[in-house]
Formats: sequence, structure tokens, C-alpha cells
Amino acid sequence: MHNISITQTKNNKQKPKDEALVFGRQFTDHMFLMDYKEGEGWYDARIVPYQPLEMDPAAMIFHYGQTVFEGLKAYRTKDDTIQLFRPEENVKRLNRSNARMCIPEVDEDIALEAIKTLVDLDRDWVPHKEGTSLYIRPFVIATEPYLGVSASKTYTFMIILSPVGAYYDAGIDPVKIAVENDYIRAVKGGTGEAKTAGNYAGSMIAQENVAKKGYAQVLWLDGHEKKYIEEVGSMNVFFKIDGKVITPHLSGSILPGVTRKSVIQLLMDWGIEVQERPILLSEVLTAHANGLLEEAFGSGTAAVISPIGELFYNETSYVINNHQTGALSKRVYDTLTGIQYGTIVDPHDWIVKVNPK
Amino acid sequence: MHNISITQTKNNKQKPKDEALVFGRQFTDHMFLMDYKEGEGWYDARIVPYQPLEMDPAAMIFHYGQTVFEGLKAYRTKDDTIQLFRPEENVKRLNRSNARMCIPEVDEDIALEAIKTLVDLDRDWVPHKEGTSLYIRPFVIATEPYLGVSASKTYTFMIILSPVGAYYDAGIDPVKIAVENDYIRAVKGGTGEAKTAGNYAGSMIAQENVAKKGYAQVLWLDGHEKKYIEEVGSMNVFFKIDGKVITPHLSGSILPGVTRKSVIQLLMDWGIEVQERPILLSEVLTAHANGLLEEAFGSGTAAVISPIGELFYNETSYVINNHQTGALSKRVYDTLTGIQYGTIVDPHDWIVKVNPK
Ligand SMILES: Cc1ncc(COP(=O)(O)O)c(C=O)c1O
Ligand SMILES: Cc1ncc(COP(=O)(O)O)c(C=O)c1O
Repeated sequence: MHNISITQTKNNKQKPKDEALVFGRQFTDHMFLMDYKEGEGWYDARIVPYQPLEMDPAAMIFHYGQTVFEGLKAYRTKDDTIQLFRPEENVKRLNRSNARMCIPEVDEDIALEAIKTLVDLDRDWVPHKEGTSLYIRPFVIATEPYLGVSASKTYTFMIILSPVGAYYDAGIDPVKIAVENDYIRAVKGGTGEAKTAGNYAGSMIAQENVAKKGYAQVLWLDGHEKKYIEEVGSMNVFFKIDGKVITPHLSGSILPGVTRKSVIQLLMDWGIEVQERPILLSEVLTAHANGLLEEAFGSGTAAVISPIGELFYNETSYVINNHQTGALSKRVYDTLTGIQYGTIVDPHDWIVKVNPK
Repeated sequence: MHNISITQTKNNKQKPKDEALVFGRQFTDHMFLMDYKEGEGWYDARIVPYQPLEMDPAAMIFHYGQTVFEGLKAYRTKDDTIQLFRPEENVKRLNRSNARMCIPEVDEDIALEAIKTLVDLDRDWVPHKEGTSLYIRPFVIATEPYLGVSASKTYTFMIILSPVGAYYDAGIDPVKIAVENDYIRAVKGGTGEAKTAGNYAGSMIAQENVAKKGYAQVLWLDGHEKKYIEEVGSMNVFFKIDGKVITPHLSGSILPGVTRKSVIQLLMDWGIEVQERPILLSEVLTAHANGLLEEAFGSGTAAVISPIGELFYNETSYVINNHQTGALSKRVYDTLTGIQYGTIVDPHDWIVKVNPK
């Protein structure tokens, strides 16, 4: 047990109704904080009522964006157990992101315990309705008030929680995706492997452009040759071609998704061939032309699985599986959500229960 | 005249001695703020005492880094005029950065007036000693408390001021630079053209690595082929080869520096041939081998001109101009600083005086 001080709120907020939940706009009663100072390390782990931060206008986060974040969820099972899905993977990725961004590592045990302690305290905020969950957002920000471009000497690690609605109102549903030809999300040697703010800020313009044309997300190509497929929106991407499943390998510009890793494991469990390797966009389009592109889907914590029903590229629409959710996409989705909500067995010890009775 | 409300501080801070000035650690008595709300536009332009900001922990700046900034300086002349160097260029660049980052444009007249009004109010903070100045940091941050990855619906535009020491303690002085082979600053289609936080956060690791080996800055190569020269640290870069001056063209991944633009103008004034075009690193090294690499320097608001005395690449050191400041580098430096501090005539109306008597 680490030493996390807890100051409980005196004014519990009104919880939103499960039916009225959206994504990421409402926050629970408490938050976790821990500070870092060069020479002292991390100190003062504490849970306090959710409240505004006091920030110096010169704090480095505002100017040079030195920051990392994570995203995972807490799920409520039928018997009111609150459980997490592979949280240690998120904590490890947080530290890999930290290393890239010159942010000091966080003790992984403390980070995990902070998540569990905070979720436990606010466990009544984990919604009940099918598909809903409590989104957990750990993040680190550079706080030193200094305008020199160099790593901050002070940081704050925080965790906030937000009850979120089901991603799919009416069951898993394919989306239309546009291949992005102008903007680049990330390039090897850049920050694409890290979960850091700048990757998301830079991607908004592409997302806005395709949204205007009726597409849900962009399909990102590599920054070197604009030939290889990287990710879809803020998800990893999979293609089922002629019975095999292919996903871009972790080339250095792709976020190593926890969902991606879990999908690959399930496919292997099921004896389905999975290839992690460079994928040319042209390969996917050729497979489509030959009738071999059977399914395509994105994977990520928010949607779990997001089937791709149509790819738009160079003024041409490529319809996949007749705009229907493929059988494999559905099987992966059902299995992952089943494990997360405790309705099917957890074959790989992915589930971590929060203060089980 | 726009409507900027002013609330003066009741507790003037103690000003640092000119001799004790550093960069970017002390801030003046006041700051400027203006808010934005979707549907309302920018409102409530105000100057208030320098003070902490109250920020929701879910504010988008902390998570998705939607932000832009600028950097310019106010100079004190011998007759105590306070003046700015091409501030309209910074304001225009701020808006180009805004466009890339999906941030609403700021009215350029209001932004300029805000800079002038704030500097005027804190004019006693502009230091006197040679080479010192008042650094001006305008910036915009996304403030909406929302965890969805999409452009914020609220922003704050701020300006803070910091008195800064001379960049060179003992006159302009060449530095050693290491060519960066692993990390990439920016790539066309990314955010390198914009002055936005993520570019700086991503570059810190490379800077830390070369600093450990005794180099002042990194020389960034292009992200596609790692063959072309882009920038040096947070500066644009110039090479004098066989009497001509060459600087990388604005390819889409390079920040269009105000100093760069001014250097090019001066060189043209002086009848020196300037080429803005792609520059292969190999071209520079070949010129060095042939004894034709006469000078190299970085350009930026902080240092004005930073001569490069040595380039390190692939375990080899290439000494430039015998580690001495070249005659042209010196001439550009003296002319620009002369114009900025009002000791030589301003041939292009670059100077904007702040509330002259
Ligand atoms: C850019 C990007 N790619 C992929 C993912 C998927 O990662 P995970 O499965 O860990 O949620 C995310 C985050 O959710 C992301 O932000
Ligand atoms: C990445 C980068 N390149 C170049 C420059 C030089 O621009 P300027 O001359 O406008 O200061 C800067 C900023 O100062 C910069 O941050």
C-alpha cells in the first residue's frame, strides 16, 4: 500500500442519468494528483474533490506542450463488481510516452493503485446501462513557469474520471472513412508512438475536413511515402483479406493500442492468421478489386471495435462487406466487451477488479 | 482604439537587476487576456495583474495540446524609446498557426494593440543594459473541459512579458551543432510550419541527447529522406557557400522565421545572392571539403544570429570558419540589432514605437 491521502468532497455532485450520458463532458466527485520536483521525485499523492487547477500562465504545458496521457475504462458487471481491462498496459505505455517526452517515469505500482483507489472512491459513478462505463484519464503536465525550450523541472500527474455513454446507440455499426492525403499524423522519429497532446492537436484539421464531407474518421498514411496505412482516426486498424487478418506493424509512428494487442491475442487464440507488417494502401484496394477484402475495422478503448463500411480515396468509394459488420469484427467485439463486462470468461487474466467484496 | 480594460496591480513586483537577468523566468506586473466562445467570438479584452489561471483539469490544452504561441521583443533605445521589431509579422504568423490548429483567428489590430498597450503599461520593465530586452509571449490555449478529440469551443488569448538578459554575454559567439539522425522535428503535412507546442515537446529529447555530448543545438533534417537540412534548434539556418547565401525554402515543415525573412531582405539590399531552396546536407559537407563553406548561422528572435562554428555528423566534426564568427554573420547581426535598438536607420519601416512621446 502506498500512501495516498484522501480528502472527500463535502458536496457530492448530481450524477447524470445513464440515458443522458455523453463522452467526456461530466466528471466525478474526486480527482487524483501527485507532484514532481527535480531532486525530490514524485511526492504528495492525494485524492481531493474535483476542482480547478491554479496554473502559472508561464507553465510549460501552455507553451511547449510537454505532456502525456492515457485512456482506459472501468466497467460494472451484472453483480456490481467494478473492473478494469489491462490497466497495467496503460501504465506501462504512460511511462513509454514519458520517456519520449522527457518526463520522469511514474512508479507503475503507485499509478495503478491511484487508479484503483480513485475508481473505488467514486464507484457509484460507474454507470449501469449496457455499454456504458467510467472513462479514466491519467495525464502528466509540465508545470514549471519557464519559457526556455527544455524539459520542465516540475510536473503534476493527475487522474480524472468521466462516466460515458455507450459508443453505439443501436449496436455496433460500420462507419465511412476517408483516406487522408494532405495531412500527416506522425512519422518515425516523431511522437506518434507516444500518447501526447501534439499528435491530437495536429490531427484536428484533417478530421474537420473529412467530417464536412460526411466521413467519420480519416485513414492516416505514413509520412514518408504516403503509401502505407497507419491508423484510423484515434484507433489502430485491421483488415481481413482472404481469410487472414493484417494490421500495420508498430513502425515507430503508430500508437501501440491495448485493444490492438488484445485483438491480436484473440485472433491467435482462435487460430486465425494475423500478420503485423507494413500494409500498402494499394494492397487493400487491390484486394477490394479482387473481392478479397472481407472486413476492416478500427480498434480502441472508446469504441472497442469500429467496423469500416466504406473507404474513400481519390474520389472513389470502396464499399466493404456491403456496409455490414463482418462476422469476425462482431466476434472480436462481442468477446472483448464480454470480457470487459464480465459476461464471458477472461482467458488471459486481463481483468483487474477494483476492491472486490 | 479597441476596448481593452485595464486593472492595475496594487503590488508592483521588484524588478530584477539588469545584470541578473536570465531568459523567461521572471514576469512583469501585468498580463493581457481575451476570451473566445463559439457563437460569440473574442470578447473581454483585458489587462490584469499577472496572476495564476484557474483551469479545469479537463481543459483541452492539457489533453490535446490545441495551442499556438508567438515570441517577439521590445527594445529600449538610448533615448528611452520602447520599440518593437516587425510585430505585425508575428501577429500574422499567429493567425497562420491558428488556422493549422483549428483555432479561431484573432483580430490582428486588436492583437497588435494588446501588445503595445501591455508593453506600454509595463514599460519600466524593459531593461536598459546592452543586449537586454523585454520578451513578449502571446499565446492561445484551448480551454473547453471536454475529452473528445475535436476543436475546442472556447479559448483564451494571452500575452505575458518577461525581461531577458543579453543572449551573448561577451559578444556574438559561434556554437557547435550536431546533425540529428534519429528524431524528426516535423514533416510536410504535419505542424512544423505552425508555432505550436507539440513541435517543441517532441524536440526536447534530441536536444537533451546532443547537450550531453557538448553540442548547443541539433541540426534537423527532413522527415522524409533525412537528407535535406531544415532548421537548427529553434532557429532557421543559413549557409554561405562560395560567396552565395543559401537557406532552406519554406517547404511546409519549417517555421517561417521573422528573423529569416529580415536576413534575406538585408542580404538582398546588400546585393548578395540569396537562394531559398532545398539544401542537401551532403551539399554542405561537399562545400566544406572543397573549402567553399565560408559561414553558417542560425537566425531567430532570441539570439538574432547564432554563428555555427562546428557541425558534427556521423562521428566527424566539420569546423566552419575556424570557429570564428564570419564577417557576413557579424554584419547581419550588427545591422539587425542596430535597427532593433535604434542605433542605425531602419530602412524598411520594421520598427514600431510603443506610445512614443
Ligand atoms: C492515436 C491512437 N491510436 C490508437 C489508439 C487505440 O489505443 P487503445 O486500444 O489503447 O485505446 C488510441 C487511443 O485510444 C489513439 O489515440
Ligand atoms: C522552430 C523555430 N524555427 C525558427 C524560429 C525563428 O523564428 P523568428 O525569427 O520569427 O524568431 C523559431 C522561433 O523563434 C522557432 O521556434
